[in-house]
Amino acid sequence: MKKKDTAPQGNVISTTPFPNSKKIYVKGTIHPQISVAMREISLEDTTDSFTGKKTPNQPVTVYDTSGPYTDPSKEINVHNGIQRIREQWILDRGDIEELDSFSSEYCNQRLRDTSLDHLRFNHLHKPKRAKAGKNVSQMHYAKQGIITPEMEYVAIRENQKIQEAKRLSKQHPGQDFGASIPDVITPEFVREEVARGRAVIPSNVNHPEAEPMILGRNFLVKINANIGNSATTSSIEEEVEKAVWACRWGADNIMDLSTGQNIHETREWIIRNSPVPIGTVPIYQALEKVNGKAEYLTWEIFRDTLIEQAEQGVDYFTIHAGVRLAYVPMTAKRITGIVSRGGSIMAKWCLAHHKESFLYTHFEEICEIMKSYDVAFSLGDGLRPGCIADANDEAQFAELETLGELTKIAWKHDVQTFIEGPGHVPMHMIKANMDKQLEACGEAPFYTLGPLTTDIAPGYDHITSGIGAAMIGWYGTAMLCYVTPKEHLGLPNKEDVRIGVITYKLAAHAADLAKGHPGAQHRDDALSKARFEFRWQDQFNLALDPERAREYHDETLPAEGAKIAHFCSMCGPKFCSMKISQEVRDYAAKKEMDDQKALATGMQEKAEEFKEKGSEVYL
Amino acid sequence: MKKKDTAPQGNVISTTPFPNSKKIYVKGTIHPQISVAMREISLEDTTDSFTGKKTPNQPVTVYDTSGPYTDPSKEINVHNGIQRIREQWILDRGDIEELDSFSSEYCNQRLRDTSLDHLRFNHLHKPKRAKAGKNVSQMHYAKQGIITPEMEYVAIRENQKIQEAKRLSKQHPGQDFGASIPDVITPEFVREEVARGRAVIPSNVNHPEAEPMILGRNFLVKINANIGNSATTSSIEEEVEKAVWACRWGADNIMDLSTGQNIHETREWIIRNSPVPIGTVPIYQALEKVNGKAEYLTWEIFRDTLIEQAEQGVDYFTIHAGVRLAYVPMTAKRITGIVSRGGSIMAKWCLAHHKESFLYTHFEEICEIMKSYDVAFSLGDGLRPGCIADANDEAQFAELETLGELTKIAWKHDVQTFIEGPGHVPMHMIKANMDKQLEACGEAPFYTLGPLTTDIAPGYDHITSGIGAAMIGWYGTAMLCYVTPKEHLGLPNKEDVRIGVITYKLAAHAADLAKGHPGAQHRDDALSKARFEFRWQDQFNLALDPERAREYHDETLPAEGAKIAHFCSMCGPKFCSMKISQEVRDYAAKKEMDDQKALATGMQEKAEEFKEKGSEVYL
Repeated sequence: MKKKDTAPQGNVISTTPFPNSKKIYVKGTIHPQISVAMREISLEDTTDSFTGKKTPNQPVTVYDTSGPYTDPSKEINVHNGIQRIREQWILDRGDIEELDSFSSEYCNQRLRDTSLDHLRFNHLHKPKRAKAGKNVSQMHYAKQGIITPEMEYVAIRENQKIQEAKRLSKQHPGQDFGASIPDVITPEFVREEVARGRAVIPSNVNHPEAEPMILGRNFLVKINANIGNSATTSSIEEEVEKAVWACRWGADNIMDLSTGQNIHETREWIIRNSPVPIGTVPIYQALEKVNGKAEYLTWEIFRDTLIEQAEQGVDYFTIHAGVRLAYVPMTAKRITGIVSRGGSIMAKWCLAHHKESFLYTHFEEICEIMKSYDVAFSLGDGLRPGCIADANDEAQFAELETLGELTKIAWKHDVQTFIEGPGHVPMHMIKANMDKQLEACGEAPFYTLGPLTTDIAPGYDHITSGIGAAMIGWYGTAMLCYVTPKEHLGLPNKEDVRIGVITYKLAAHAADLAKGHPGAQHRDDALSKARFEFRWQDQFNLALDPERAREYHDETLPAEGAKIAHFCSMCGPKFCSMKISQEVRDYAAKKEMDDQKALATGMQEKAEEFKEKGSEVYL
Repeated sequence: MKKKDTAPQGNVISTTPFPNSKKIYVKGTIHPQISVAMREISLEDTTDSFTGKKTPNQPVTVYDTSGPYTDPSKEINVHNGIQRIREQWILDRGDIEELDSFSSEYCNQRLRDTSLDHLRFNHLHKPKRAKAGKNVSQMHYAKQGIITPEMEYVAIRENQKIQEAKRLSKQHPGQDFGASIPDVITPEFVREEVARGRAVIPSNVNHPEAEPMILGRNFLVKINANIGNSATTSSIEEEVEKAVWACRWGADNIMDLSTGQNIHETREWIIRNSPVPIGTVPIYQALEKVNGKAEYLTWEIFRDTLIEQAEQGVDYFTIHAGVRLAYVPMTAKRITGIVSRGGSIMAKWCLAHHKESFLYTHFEEICEIMKSYDVAFSLGDGLRPGCIADANDEAQFAELETLGELTKIAWKHDVQTFIEGPGHVPMHMIKANMDKQLEACGEAPFYTLGPLTTDIAPGYDHITSGIGAAMIGWYGTAMLCYVTPKEHLGLPNKEDVRIGVITYKLAAHAADLAKGHPGAQHRDDALSKARFEFRWQDQFNLALDPERAREYHDETLPAEGAKIAHFCSMCGPKFCSMKISQEVRDYAAKKEMDDQKALATGMQEKAEEFKEKGSEVYL
């Protein structure tokens, strides 16, 4: 079933720019060397239906995660990897050293294995690491009052040039449940948030290709897409394209959850070509190294895996250090036991050895590694509920308390940290998760999988979970891990990845609107205005998925003429409410009187006039 | 583009039963003549992984909207229509008369038109109407203390035999925001709820084919699927199949929103073959009768349309009587004006005539018609917001107040009434809609379209709206009107209808779980237990869409053997958390000691034993 791995050819990498869009780059002020990529969508003019007069519509700038792949001026060659935009920033800080060789034993073993030459990424860079005694984490700099280029980058990026946008409506005030979202994100605000642990900028010094991105409840809600091969399916080439593809549709982060063969080499290809931070669950690879026997895992094997992956450039590690021995029996009466892969591996280890896991007992040593590369913790919720019945139980919340304790230890080391959350939770029990997490973990960013709000819709779990994701994002979760339609059933293909990403992108955006994130409503307004004015192309182009929108429209009305038609296939010309509504408005405009006046004076006369002229309004 | 209409051949009607499911019928007690249809899903045995011992799993009974189409013992012939289960119940009440001819002028005109013979439903039944001075509404009976067969039917149906189910977990207590959901739905409870207007059983005496169904905040959340042809697409046959298809996947109600040709004849086919109540927006057809010129609409034309449709058997009418002249100018500054088709038609009429609409001024006469057939009001929200920016504005809430006043007038006539709601609303502003509706409309059931929680995802608006739908259902909305992926872009095809229905079914179920509806969690628990025990077939069969779940699984692991495998393609055998988790549990069971004891005693010994035996647990 499994195809033989080969090096990617790069033939399948998606590089088409989005329609009517161009890449723009905004320069830094504190750090003039930075260029923050955004996507600018050009719009058509609005045509007055009476006078024919055209009024231009300002382009709309949107957050862009697609990296250089959608910039036709950038050459893409998967064998070289993408531009290393952060490399000089990192070197300029003077606190890292370039190593002559990799520090991980396993990594060197793979490099020596000539049978792997045909599938290896050939332009390996020298690994970087903090000089002895140095801490290269963004949190460390932030605590020292340093605004790094990464911090200014995310500040500019978060604002999306909204200050320059001509707003189309007064945005609704949000309900933010105690978040502190400023009108303008300044670099200093970013620094403060990172310093106090309320935000994370995943930025391994060995992944300078990644465009800086911030996670925190006072920032735009982000999404993560999981990719990765397994023992049963998929190739390196497919996985690289899946990463590029996920970024194209809006993934802010990628987790490589590969568990099959050649995961070391696959990861190298992915990282070198990824414009977004990459996360992994190192215990998966460690388990491969002991042939899948959890009880044979050791601290030494795990430690070598952390270093192996840190030197490749993984930006954050999911580490299930909160699965304590005493919590495992709490899951015995559950309907679905332990559903986290990492959690179940560690639970098995704990039971087999009848002691606390090496993740827990060696936590401070892990911190030492993390800060040498600026790898962030994604503290895994190994005991998250796997069904509605098991939600918010003793095991889950006991682990969360432990994650809170570990957060404080990580912060003591200035290691950036965020916390993973459920899972499967009915709607009315979601907020308790957010509240407990904020309290237990001192506002460290929360990163949840869904949660799924019912168990009865396999095949549609992107939706059962999109509901929970939007809600928990509103309540304060910083990042939402996507779920695809294949959840519980199979591995996602490219189309599933696209659907999963768009579903989570819309959920994250719904959360931004509800939190009242400044400027979040601007794209909604621009799209709705286009819809009302029958600017079909603009409506498609402003959509999260312009291709899908256009394709659905064309299924019923494929003619090009239909895209300037003042109706759609839903209602046909006579029944189009937008059309009638516009006639109502045009009528008022034509009369050059405001609507109140129209009501107050000359009613009968106006009525007659409308009958004569109003029916002639059709274009 | 439009195909020529012909009578349906019935070739495309979906009649396959669901896998491992059989139709069961539960008899009434007060009314022994009633047989309430449900679907019973048989499950495989659970096999103990150590002993091989098999334990049977009780079948799961689920709410079934698919009508006779999934019962192989029922003969389906679209030319005859389906069984008229309520006919005798209606006749037995002795308060209706059968008319020799139809009362609507337009209807008779169509009947005389021989050019329509080829597409006509031929087995027309005599129209029924209340005898002079009688009121045949369920509300009228309820207020008189009468428990009708319809009331007992819905009581039995709502309970889904949950009292007989062996529960797999203690269901989470819900958060019901002031609803009063009893543990068991009794016929008397149904009567009380209908009498006080808090619930509606749409039951036109001319649609005896419909299986009774109840809308109300103290009952299971229901969903509506819109179908209907338009001037640009689709045939009668397609529309009948779309109705059957929508019911198959879970639609509790169908609205026929046809605006194209032959809508009178199309509607007849749909109603005669529909096992669920049918709603319409009569103003659409009225507008066709005046060639699409809203200003030429009259009360007389509208009145004749109401009678025409009431005698065909439409169970509820959307009537936009709340669009008052003074509210229209409130929409002028909106980004998307008036987006309700009916609302915009009435707004245009109001402006053209500069007076209140005939729907408002003739409201009591409309009530007289409604109670003669037991057609329920679905009071339309003609001024609902069409985008995020316009949500919860003055126009919308002004109309809602008027709908509240009209509800009280309808109730004075004992006419069953529910209220339509938005539309496009950001998450944090949804609850205000529910709260205002409850207050303004005296707890009359709320029936909302979504709401969509963002405007930026055309092509995915089943999801943007599924989020809002789940939330407002939780807050107390009785029925959710589905949105398909084609919303704003085109007319839904069959696949879109299926996706829209399943999306709303899962949203409604998520709401039932959150409200704490008794027994709602049972299906989740049964499915999750099957998932944990690797009973793949049961997992598929318990899903809302068994075919899709099976199809997705088979994409990666098509072999039949994979359906008894103790892992899936997501993780492969070594990484399957459910598998490991089960090993942990089995381990504890095997040792015949509880987990606490296992922790406390003989730790090292147990650890050694586990290493020897635990790894042999693989099946």
